[in-house]
Amino acid sequence: MILRLKRGGGPAEIQALRSRIESEGLRVYQSPECLRPILAIVDKVPEALAADLLQSPQIEETTQPKTAWRLVAREFRDSRTQIDLGGVRIGDDTVVVIAGPCSVEGRDLIEETARSVADSGAHILRGGAFKPRTSPYAFQGFGVEGLRQLKDAGEKFGMPVVTEIMDAADVPAFVDHDIDCLQIGARNMQNFRLLKAVAVAGRPVLLKRGLSSTVEEWLYAAEYLAAGGCHDIILCERGIRTFETATRNTLDLTVLPLLAELTHLPVIVDPSHAAGIARLVAPLSRASIAAGAAGVAVEVHPRPHEARSDGPQALLPGELTGVVADARIQAAISGRQLA
Amino acid sequence: MILRLKRGGGPAEIQALRSRIESEGLRVYQSPECLRPILAIVDKVPEALAADLLQSPQIEETTQPKTAWRLVAREFRDSRTQIDLGGVRIGDDTVVVIAGPCSVEGRDLIEETARSVADSGAHILRGGAFKPRTSPYAFQGFGVEGLRQLKDAGEKFGMPVVTEIMDAADVPAFVDHDIDCLQIGARNMQNFRLLKAVAVAGRPVLLKRGLSSTVEEWLYAAEYLAAGGCHDIILCERGIRTFETATRNTLDLTVLPLLAELTHLPVIVDPSHAAGIARLVAPLSRASIAAGAAGVAVEVHPRPHEARSDGPQALLPGELTGVVADARIQAAISGRQLA
Amino acid sequence: MILRLKRGGGPAEIQALRSRIESEGLRVYQSPECLRPILAIVDKVPEALAADLLQSPQIEETTQPKTAWRLVAREFRDSRTQIDLGGVRIGDDTVVVIAGPCSVEGRDLIEETARSVADSGAHILRGGAFKPRTSPYAFQGFGVEGLRQLKDAGEKFGMPVVTEIMDAADVPAFVDHDIDCLQIGARNMQNFRLLKAVAVAGRPVLLKRGLSSTVEEWLYAAEYLAAGGCHDIILCERGIRTFETATRNTLDLTVLPLLAELTHLPVIVDPSHAAGIARLVAPLSRASIAAGAAGVAVEVHPRPHEARSDGPQALLPGELTGVVADARIQAAISGRQLA
Amino acid sequence: MILRLKRGGGPAEIQALRSRIESEGLRVYQSPECLRPILAIVDKVPEALAADLLQSPQIEETTQPKTAWRLVAREFRDSRTQIDLGGVRIGDDTVVVIAGPCSVEGRDLIEETARSVADSGAHILRGGAFKPRTSPYAFQGFGVEGLRQLKDAGEKFGMPVVTEIMDAADVPAFVDHDIDCLQIGARNMQNFRLLKAVAVAGRPVLLKRGLSSTVEEWLYAAEYLAAGGCHDIILCERGIRTFETATRNTLDLTVLPLLAELTHLPVIVDPSHAAGIARLVAPLSRASIAAGAAGVAVEVHPRPHEARSDGPQALLPGELTGVVADARIQAAISGRQLA
Repeated sequence: MILRLKRGGGPAEIQALRSRIESEGLRVYQSPECLRPILAIVDKVPEALAADLLQSPQIEETTQPKTAWRLVAREFRDSRTQIDLGGVRIGDDTVVVIAGPCSVEGRDLIEETARSVADSGAHILRGGAFKPRTSPYAFQGFGVEGLRQLKDAGEKFGMPVVTEIMDAADVPAFVDHDIDCLQIGARNMQNFRLLKAVAVAGRPVLLKRGLSSTVEEWLYAAEYLAAGGCHDIILCERGIRTFETATRNTLDLTVLPLLAELTHLPVIVDPSHAAGIARLVAPLSRASIAAGAAGVAVEVHPRPHEARSDGPQALLPGELTGVVADARIQAAISGRQLA
Repeated sequence: MILRLKRGGGPAEIQALRSRIESEGLRVYQSPECLRPILAIVDKVPEALAADLLQSPQIEETTQPKTAWRLVAREFRDSRTQIDLGGVRIGDDTVVVIAGPCSVEGRDLIEETARSVADSGAHILRGGAFKPRTSPYAFQGFGVEGLRQLKDAGEKFGMPVVTEIMDAADVPAFVDHDIDCLQIGARNMQNFRLLKAVAVAGRPVLLKRGLSSTVEEWLYAAEYLAAGGCHDIILCERGIRTFETATRNTLDLTVLPLLAELTHLPVIVDPSHAAGIARLVAPLSRASIAAGAAGVAVEVHPRPHEARSDGPQALLPGELTGVVADARIQAAISGRQLA
Repeated sequence: MILRLKRGGGPAEIQALRSRIESEGLRVYQSPECLRPILAIVDKVPEALAADLLQSPQIEETTQPKTAWRLVAREFRDSRTQIDLGGVRIGDDTVVVIAGPCSVEGRDLIEETARSVADSGAHILRGGAFKPRTSPYAFQGFGVEGLRQLKDAGEKFGMPVVTEIMDAADVPAFVDHDIDCLQIGARNMQNFRLLKAVAVAGRPVLLKRGLSSTVEEWLYAAEYLAAGGCHDIILCERGIRTFETATRNTLDLTVLPLLAELTHLPVIVDPSHAAGIARLVAPLSRASIAAGAAGVAVEVHPRPHEARSDGPQALLPGELTGVVADARIQAAISGRQLA
Repeated sequence: MILRLKRGGGPAEIQALRSRIESEGLRVYQSPECLRPILAIVDKVPEALAADLLQSPQIEETTQPKTAWRLVAREFRDSRTQIDLGGVRIGDDTVVVIAGPCSVEGRDLIEETARSVADSGAHILRGGAFKPRTSPYAFQGFGVEGLRQLKDAGEKFGMPVVTEIMDAADVPAFVDHDIDCLQIGARNMQNFRLLKAVAVAGRPVLLKRGLSSTVEEWLYAAEYLAAGGCHDIILCERGIRTFETATRNTLDLTVLPLLAELTHLPVIVDPSHAAGIARLVAPLSRASIAAGAAGVAVEVHPRPHEARSDGPQALLPGELTGVVADARIQAAISGRQLA
């Protein structure tokens, strides 16, 4: 149950209401940003209490969402979530481009790539330090050393960085290296322990959709983050697994207008992993922003054929410049602007 | 094997070459439109003949596509296919909007809808006369009477019409009623008898992708049409079946840039059947054209809640006007124009 | 709505009840075989009529199935459907083995194969005369000549035959050649025109599940046959399309106990098309019968590597003998016997 | 590359060979149980070394599997893996039944359930202490207290226990409570950090297939365990995610004969999670063992409607007895016996 309080109620009144609810053993959360206070009760509300609340002079409106997610539901905020990601604003009226190599492969290479990302006009640098790989014998990333190289490259060219975290135990290392945004990968979308650990890191989180996750499961995963105290969540569609094998995955852009109705969180798209083919990335980036995405995350490499992972889907620096130019146009015609 | 002949060869020379190939029991087709004659041999070419052909002074170049489709392959044409659909040009540099109700439900209603389609600036009228329905007890369409009503409505407002054909035996009725474009529905994409019958109808064909058809199977279905003599084929992506149930189907826009590499045929998108939710149609239409679609086909109804089928996915006339306006903008920024 | 009448009602009383229902514009069907008469109304019953029927002294019980299929619903029969397929009994207490080549490839070969099928103890001969092929250039079957060869081979070795029909226009040829059972292939499961035409052929029908058809859609397809007058319907699970590519399709045996609850029709399994690998056919046949299948349909070829289609999934004659032996054991431990 | 050494080579000779390989920077593993020593090199072998090895007098045979898994490949063992799971033997010639509630819900209830599991003749007790739940607000299990209750119940009735581990940090708690087998759940199949941590726990591991994991990815996940030092791995098919919604998942029994060719590991089946409907569990259990499964894992609850999770798929104790009886029969007719 979501409770919209009347304007003017002070902290003491809100606290009294919360105490009343919690005294019945129910969990209640307060919306972090709203004109009027909004509370969400995440447990089943007994009828007697529901009747009480309906009559409370403090409460203007109660709603009962059909699903069990509450804190990420559209109804829990007055407006859409705006996130400050290391100085880059992500949300309703901006379009962001995140770019970088699949994996951080050395100091020189990440610097070379970061320079081209910055030159292209993209906003945020990405790159994997901890790599989830299907085979135990494949290159698993540089780990903590990769975090350092990525952050240094980002700072050198004035860009915040985002990179994947695979284990709760690594949270301190990510914070120590001042990683601006922690990414939860597709395979870990329902790694609930990791979600709980990352939620308290105090950083924005990029939550990729699982390979075969429904929209409902995805929003529940986001709810794990929100219930753990993380409000700056960016959803990332990256293609789902279907019968089609002509492309690596099937990019599901239908979720963009759908999620705009279901949640206040911004959604970006990763067309590189979806398609698995570099030539498809530019048109799919355009389509993503046209469908309402708050941005795109793409892979770029100065020499894709030398990449230690996912070379075939990496853009060349010049192609990235085209993606940013297209993003600017699509942003403009939808009344937005580049971040 | 695809053979590109040198310029200047006359019909007699081409015929001699074809005879040489056919004398070995191989099937050979000639490209309908090209600067230089192009021939495709669709059977396995014996080594001796292949060696012969490579040395032929008439032949400039031979290519061996990896897949067995030939006539719809990019290599079989010099340029992309341009189709004249009852006066509307579909293909590389135009963007077309096809609109109409799910089913033709009576003379007054189809006229009312046709008027709003014409007013919106859309180009082609659609509407089902023969309806494939999951249940035998559901409304199956008005049949031939529906064809008549649709065509009359199209003529009244100066628009060509497209409608689905479900049985080879109905081809004469479609031709008699001067239906401008015959649609093969998703469930019939691999109804090979129907494909063969429609191929000789002498009309453009709109070939919808099957619910769980791969790109490869789709192009083979188009090849059935082409091998049967139909060159004016429009492919239509309409969503595939996946595990996701939040939307009716999953729209696969990844195929747009992919098909641009694999075939010379134009591809349009039907976001109405993909999403199954009217509110998602406008953003998905924008995304489709941004990804390179030659147009969109959408459902519209003056009073969606009264529709006998698929009401929840039908746009209101005013919403259709917005879709056409968006299509115009997306066409413009990609160097194209409305058809 | 399904109406179970009291015992003892004569034809005149039943006809009066039907007339009463039909006078309101509703379609009503009578169950072909039952201790007490059962009627199914397939249209929405107005409240007034429903109240009337509930009070009718003739009616013992009314039920309202949740789905719109009626004639194939469990409730429409007192017992499960038993089918006489050219002398072979298919249904509740028997297990049948159908075997033969993918396609009929000539008189000698089909006779050689039929001999080994008969020798193995299998009951029914299968073989394709009309072949649905993905590519228009692939071998499309011998057509009517194939029907003749198949029927002759069946007669020579005392087995009824089943083979696929692809077009409504071919029904007379199938009847003329006395084909014992008409098969609707997976690609045509929702070719509704074909279903309607086959329903009136007066022969048992083997209805394969579509590649991506839900159980619901499959039963609706069966309902098309039943509504058209065909009561002898055998469902055939043959694998569905999923993300897994290690096998040709994913065999869905979960449907066997599920369908036993939803319908009175017998269900058999085709493990050859599901797996696409001959070595997997024997264990999957055992599993199918253990899960309750009324039989299996498998492909066999004396020299699989010479087969013109689907050789990799064809059993050798000796392997078929093993499948029949296993079927006998699985039948016995489930209280059934070979047909 | 897999190297089969000649008989009679002593440890020193094997060590010399390993050193030779490792000196080139390659990783090499030795098979734990074989008549003749078998080594697997998991990195790409340089041509010069490959030539050397082919000529080595110690080596009888080299094979180059097509895929990159080595230690779980059929070729890495002389025979199939046999596992001693707390006294219960799992592997080639036995059939095991694992049963218990979805989650451990209290000391009395788990004891009551354990008694009925023991009475039914099943061999191993299961029950969740750490529960991965889609919603953050759903019951998450009793945690460590659940481990204690489960182990106590197992000891009281003489059964080893298996339960899911969700986090690397919990390994010590599982070992301290002497959990006999650690389960990796479907959602964590590609939680590579967890796989690495569990691999060194010194306990057998039950590795569930991911919801949308291919056979290849599943075997790679097993390879993570094997490369980490765990040789006692049991694979568990539990249904995959497809378009079909009539059942919770689609049970993929095709993998049973397929895996028998690809790996030496035993495979069991969990029909409860696959079907999600208790009535389907018994026939699917029979089918699983008929297709070659080394056992089944099923859910049972004395009062399913009171279960805190997954009640609809839980068997009643009496139904479990039937599953064990069927397993005994299916084991017998396939030349095996209950564990």
